[in-house]
Amino acid sequence: MRILKTKNLAEFNQLGANLLLTEMLKSHYRVNLAITAGRTPKGIYDVLIEQVKDKTYLDNVFYYNFDEIPYQQSDREGITISDLRSMYLRPANVAEKNIQKMDMTNFNTQDERILQAGGLDAILLGVGADGHYCGNLPGTTKFEDLTTEVVCDEKMKQRISRLFETKEEVPDSYITMGPRSIMAAHHLILSACGTEKAEIIKAFVEGPVTIDLPVTLLKTHPNLTLLVDDEAGSLI
Amino acid sequence: MRILKTKNLAEFNQLGANLLLTEMLKSHYRVNLAITAGRTPKGIYDVLIEQVKDKTYLDNVFYYNFDEIPYQQSDREGITISDLRSMYLRPANVAEKNIQKMDMTNFNTQDERILQAGGLDAILLGVGADGHYCGNLPGTTKFEDLTTEVVCDEKMKQRISRLFETKEEVPDSYITMGPRSIMAAHHLILSACGTEKAEIIKAFVEGPVTIDLPVTLLKTHPNLTLLVDDEAGSLI
Amino acid sequence: MRILKTKNLAEFNQLGANLLLTEMLKSHYRVNLAITAGRTPKGIYDVLIEQVKDKTYLDNVFYYNFDEIPYQQSDREGITISDLRSMYLRPANVAEKNIQKMDMTNFNTQDERILQAGGLDAILLGVGADGHYCGNLPGTTKFEDLTTEVVCDEKMKQRISRLFETKEEVPDSYITMGPRSIMAAHHLILSACGTEKAEIIKAFVEGPVTIDLPVTLLKTHPNLTLLVDDEAGSLI
Amino acid sequence: MRILKTKNLAEFNQLGANLLLTEMLKSHYRVNLAITAGRTPKGIYDVLIEQVKDKTYLDNVFYYNFDEIPYQQSDREGITISDLRSMYLRPANVAEKNIQKMDMTNFNTQDERILQAGGLDAILLGVGADGHYCGNLPGTTKFEDLTTEVVCDEKMKQRISRLFETKEEVPDSYITMGPRSIMAAHHLILSACGTEKAEIIKAFVEGPVTIDLPVTLLKTHPNLTLLVDDEAGSLI
Repeated sequence: MRILKTKNLAEFNQLGANLLLTEMLKSHYRVNLAITAGRTPKGIYDVLIEQVKDKTYLDNVFYYNFDEIPYQQSDREGITISDLRSMYLRPANVAEKNIQKMDMTNFNTQDERILQAGGLDAILLGVGADGHYCGNLPGTTKFEDLTTEVVCDEKMKQRISRLFETKEEVPDSYITMGPRSIMAAHHLILSACGTEKAEIIKAFVEGPVTIDLPVTLLKTHPNLTLLVDDEAGSLI
Repeated sequence: MRILKTKNLAEFNQLGANLLLTEMLKSHYRVNLAITAGRTPKGIYDVLIEQVKDKTYLDNVFYYNFDEIPYQQSDREGITISDLRSMYLRPANVAEKNIQKMDMTNFNTQDERILQAGGLDAILLGVGADGHYCGNLPGTTKFEDLTTEVVCDEKMKQRISRLFETKEEVPDSYITMGPRSIMAAHHLILSACGTEKAEIIKAFVEGPVTIDLPVTLLKTHPNLTLLVDDEAGSLI
Repeated sequence: MRILKTKNLAEFNQLGANLLLTEMLKSHYRVNLAITAGRTPKGIYDVLIEQVKDKTYLDNVFYYNFDEIPYQQSDREGITISDLRSMYLRPANVAEKNIQKMDMTNFNTQDERILQAGGLDAILLGVGADGHYCGNLPGTTKFEDLTTEVVCDEKMKQRISRLFETKEEVPDSYITMGPRSIMAAHHLILSACGTEKAEIIKAFVEGPVTIDLPVTLLKTHPNLTLLVDDEAGSLI
Repeated sequence: MRILKTKNLAEFNQLGANLLLTEMLKSHYRVNLAITAGRTPKGIYDVLIEQVKDKTYLDNVFYYNFDEIPYQQSDREGITISDLRSMYLRPANVAEKNIQKMDMTNFNTQDERILQAGGLDAILLGVGADGHYCGNLPGTTKFEDLTTEVVCDEKMKQRISRLFETKEEVPDSYITMGPRSIMAAHHLILSACGTEKAEIIKAFVEGPVTIDLPVTLLKTHPNLTLLVDDEAGSLI
């Protein structure tokens, strides 16, 4: 585990952008990246967009979403890809052919398609205070799971309802790359900022691997980078 | 996970040797291998020795032991390195400078020394019917452990006493690279042959990741090769 | 440059097969190999065929021909791919989808298609006593050339006429990956056996880089393996 | 060849810094970089210094100089390393242990030491209007040369005399990694800015490989990045 503890949020954003640029620039062959749509990377993407926008030499970079919360009974694009589009893909002017969208129609071939494409060079992940990453929340997936559909119980529906305007839009299930799908990537970049993440980061670095905190499995990955700002890193 | 299911023991031995040769020949830079001293690889080594003996172009290959059971109160070399020497290192005529021995005096720098040397390119592992690998037996190490010393309780002493001629030689503790040390390698080659391994291989491939069967963690490694003969692979 | 000087032809064939197996087994992602159809590798392929025939775990390996001498005014497959089929592809039972044939209809996209496929992991090359490799003969291509069509003058037609049954079949031009296409591969394996190659191997190892001996450029490749038997290596 | 043509000098400097950061951040294992002391990279280093200064997570990065012009009959550090120190190493606060200095006492082990250290991950090179790079000037080294000492004739002494305060300091010879040493690196980053480089860049991209323009050999490297600003790239 490589721990990159930055001095403040500005340095966190800059280094996060540098880590993603590193993956993009390291080769002139195809590069596959899965990136997160959570709040953590907003500042990272703002720095990154300036470096990648309209750069034709980055045409070899392909983007994947690693989870999706669909709209119930609707063809509308899901929450994750919509957020990725507004936060990064659109302002960075990424061509549609470079966006490898996972949705309810193709998630069960996600792992195989990634394998055929040479694997994910890197995944940029956030982590929740409850130890979740992607759609791997406590009580949902298991360490051995690949990409899977998670049925939403009432508690989960309540949790995700804030993402939707009407109750009818809240889906009965969502999809996520599972722990084993995520571990299959060549490089994991786990990012966290803010004091509310200090406890989970301490648990991640110093504590046991436990399904109760799903993210803890990732500390066993051979090529994991933990990127934190001063606040999220305050207890390590 | 790449599953290599061979037709018989002869093909198992040949392919196991090929997998190790692959690591040795893939680069003219330093290559680091950790290899197992259990019974499984005996046939692999017999095939391999012919290909590597006295080959000066393999001077870039360095060998590590990933566990050691020392003699109690003795300077004598431990069980693992002794077995490795007789099974492979001596008949293959490996130079002493290429043998990176871990023992009771240096095990706590094993992870750091491997990191400095560029990491382990591959580890050849066996697996026990109880799900153990290296010295990671059920009830000993945890998923988050690095290289560590394991204190032997009476049950463990009894188990390992068959390796020693006198009771006085049985040690109070042994050392092993932990699950996280093993997961840090670039490539894991998990090998099993014989019908007595069929059940654990089925559990490994199809079952959950559980500390009760320590080896199951390894199925989350991004670059794992499972090599089995027809018997060990009969249930998958 | 890594020089692998073997004791005899049997060891040469075995090590050549091991080097190709190394490329095939090193990854579970797509692997791209270009292999030669000359006389040198016949023994290598004979050893290799046993290791690869009907192995479904090698479905990730794709084969390329790096040159082609077509039949004049005929749809018949060219000399190179025909030889590759009879020497290796057919006896090794390689599936048609794994054969990426270059011919007169698609050679001008060869470099781009290889780039899109992730590059050639390795090329197995022979060398002529005149310093040629692939279709890069003295007086034909230049160091800066990519894949190209070479017009045959009368001397060349005479040279290649032995490959054809009738004079009418001898083509007006042939195609070859150029020096720069070959240099673009991740690993070059240059092989030579027999006393008639001893002089050119000495020139290659000890002499200058000169377009008069086209192969000499390859000694500047960052990852070149020179494989010779005792005879071809007798002067180095 | 990957051509990165930037819009202006500011973008050139930023992307040059990004390319070097890419090499530094891509791994937590040892990283070896050789960097140039010419005028071209000054702006690159100014951007880079902010990103690397006092970053303990870059302790795995080692720096090499690829040529040296020593002071005649003096223990004083040579021109190249002195320039590197003032332009980059000192302001970036690089620890002395991370500086792998080549000088007149150790240049003949440079290639071997780099090989033992795992090779150069990248070299940042400039190019002269006369087609020289490092100390490989027209009429000095040959394509097949490794690291070597070049005797200065009167013309050369005159050329380099501007670097020294007194005539007595001008050396009788200098040292440089040769074409083959440079080609051995995993990644070459050739950089050029300004209109006075437009002609040589055009010759590099479109022209033949010729010893008269030593840099042209580098266009055959399997992993070459050409970085130019709008002026140096104006003719391609």
